[in-house]
Amino acid sequence: MSRRVLEQMDVADCLELLGGVSLGRVVYTEKALPAIRPVNHVLDDGAVIIRSHLGGALATAVGSGRGTVVAYEADAIDPIEHVGWSVVVTGVAHLVADSREVARYERLLRPWVEIAMDCVIRIEPRLVTGYRLVEAAEVGTG
Amino acid sequence: MSRRVLEQMDVADCLELLGGVSLGRVVYTEKALPAIRPVNHVLDDGAVIIRSHLGGALATAVGSGRGTVVAYEADAIDPIEHVGWSVVVTGVAHLVADSREVARYERLLRPWVEIAMDCVIRIEPRLVTGYRLVEAAEVGTG
Repeated sequence: MSRRVLEQMDVADCLELLGGVSLGRVVYTEKALPAIRPVNHVLDDGAVIIRSHLGGALATAVGSGRGTVVAYEADAIDPIEHVGWSVVVTGVAHLVADSREVARYERLLRPWVEIAMDCVIRIEPRLVTGYRLVEAAEVGTG
Repeated sequence: MSRRVLEQMDVADCLELLGGVSLGRVVYTEKALPAIRPVNHVLDDGAVIIRSHLGGALATAVGSGRGTVVAYEADAIDPIEHVGWSVVVTGVAHLVADSREVARYERLLRPWVEIAMDCVIRIEPRLVTGYRLVEAAEVGTG
């Protein structure tokens, strides 16, 4: 297989790719340990919206005080061809409290797993990074 | 779409699924913030082996002192059908220092991206959890 290199993407490309998929992974801290969980998401006005079980570790961390810093990652990488992309958003996660906003997000975003009591979490991006994994250009061609 | 539920898997099933794929995501702490990066892996005697850029944030965190606690996640979830699985390993990550071990892992595990100087990291699982996302059994059938 020819060489692969990472090409950094700009923020607009990152958010476009992230908005084009429905599944990602939220990364947070649980009892001082790194934790990660796959969830589905929507993008709304540049923010990542997810739903989570109220009372779970993530909701508890997010709900305490001024929110909590999380990362949110999505990728699409071909395990055979070794090409694709990954995007990581780092930002502050807050519980969405406004009942009209909650109702709107509950229409936009259906959890894939039935959860009895849940909450809506908004992640406001502070840092958006992403890379494409591409075939290296050969010197002297193209 | 019919209901989906999460079924917890036992450790053996988790490790079998993790060992059957080549791509996952390492979750660590960088400058006190949650960080995540897709990497390829192999399983060796129950441990997760990855390679990373020496001098990068992950290698620096792992190399300091007694290693560092990380999470490692892999999943395969169908975004249309909403079925699949995810596995999370939490454990202590160490730099592999023994040169014969390093040489063996460098044969077993080729990084997908060309990296000039790299190191081998072994994650010894302390906690292995995983779930299947499956169609809920209908009451009174099957």
